[in-house]
Amino acid sequence: MSDIVTAAMLVIGDEILSGRTKDRNIGHLAEMMTAIGIDLKEVRIVADDEDAIVEALNAIRARYTYVFTTGGIGPTHDDITADAVAKAFGLPCEHDERAYAMLAENYAERGMDFTEARKRMARMPRGAVHIDNPVSIAPGFRIENVHVMAGVPSIFQAMLDNVVPGLKTGTRLISVSIHCPAGEGTIGGPLGEIQKQHPDTIIGSYPKYLDGKFWTELVVRARTPEALAPAEEAVRQMVARLTDSAAAI
Amino acid sequence: MSDIVTAAMLVIGDEILSGRTKDRNIGHLAEMMTAIGIDLKEVRIVADDEDAIVEALNAIRARYTYVFTTGGIGPTHDDITADAVAKAFGLPCEHDERAYAMLAENYAERGMDFTEARKRMARMPRGAVHIDNPVSIAPGFRIENVHVMAGVPSIFQAMLDNVVPGLKTGTRLISVSIHCPAGEGTIGGPLGEIQKQHPDTIIGSYPKYLDGKFWTELVVRARTPEALAPAEEAVRQMVARLTDSAAAI
Repeated sequence: MSDIVTAAMLVIGDEILSGRTKDRNIGHLAEMMTAIGIDLKEVRIVADDEDAIVEALNAIRARYTYVFTTGGIGPTHDDITADAVAKAFGLPCEHDERAYAMLAENYAERGMDFTEARKRMARMPRGAVHIDNPVSIAPGFRIENVHVMAGVPSIFQAMLDNVVPGLKTGTRLISVSIHCPAGEGTIGGPLGEIQKQHPDTIIGSYPKYLDGKFWTELVVRARTPEALAPAEEAVRQMVARLTDSAAAI
Repeated sequence: MSDIVTAAMLVIGDEILSGRTKDRNIGHLAEMMTAIGIDLKEVRIVADDEDAIVEALNAIRARYTYVFTTGGIGPTHDDITADAVAKAFGLPCEHDERAYAMLAENYAERGMDFTEARKRMARMPRGAVHIDNPVSIAPGFRIENVHVMAGVPSIFQAMLDNVVPGLKTGTRLISVSIHCPAGEGTIGGPLGEIQKQHPDTIIGSYPKYLDGKFWTELVVRARTPEALAPAEEAVRQMVARLTDSAAAI
């Protein structure tokens, strides 16, 4: 189907893999993609390691419509994302003239040295297009289908807001969420039957566990209201039958 | 080096990629691995899709000492992890006799039907070893170096607690965290020099942004106190010089 647009995310950073920093960007990107009708198909988290970044990026950029990266675009020695992305594309990584000028002006205004480290933030693969950073000036960049953004959540979110309007979006998935007081073991059989009878839908079952009891959130998704409605009705009837049956709770 | 033990994590679930559920297991596994001296090198998140699971699992299980998966081991039609793992290993996926008996007994005690859906939770690749589930009985399993666990955080954490004592662990990384009031642009140059002079350490710089100001958390890691101490001292001296200099803040 031509209206399916896919995406993958590459999270770059030792601090996520060590557990020191808890990622907050995956969930944000996932929600945003769902909201605009792009299917996020895969996420990878890799270390600040050039070979790991190049390999992961080349694997996913060939496979999905869009790739979004976070992390590793700051000014320190462990910020190697721009170099790794350039290497993945076989492009030189060099100071971008406009980014360099923006940063030079910004630091001059603030009376701060434009250090070699800060100049690193103006580096990007030749031919990259800026992604504006309203928080702290140093831009992210897009090269072909890869969007390279900051790891600090407030900056990542601001950059993503600037990227989203330019994306080709798919037919949004519509969904309904249905609370089911029974656990998955009770509903697994009948729910599987409903999924089979409604192949145009994606029915998910998300087990929840609270105070020693299981309950389930059932989510029915489809690309049209016409596909969604009969599957939703079938799930609601299944839940109603269970609710009438004390044994199922 | 023979004392480096590596791991990768595979998170399985449409609900994470849609943003409906925010993953809470990556951070927990990452912290646990760091605590016991295993290097978590990579995380992948894939959908409830057999091909995607098989491909990702085969890529990472060959490369790292251990693999840990979360999600997709419940009783519903979208819980396909056991089948996908069996397929990745070229093994039949079948009811495990002991798991089947445990579940049958548990549901009988609770006066609940042992439905076809619930029986799904006893399926695992032939030859798999149980990972006990003290929360809700249905076990995870280990097959070779791959540990297959639940996605519900409380169950995942309980299963992981049962796995950890059996893992070969590496020489733990020791680390110190140093608060630096300056942003990365100020310290990037000198910090890179310190990293070069102390190649046995891993020096990380984690930008923080609060109320319009940047500060930085600097983390020095090493496998021995002898390697750590001189690098830590060099970083502390760098920070002290910056703190003395008003311009740097």
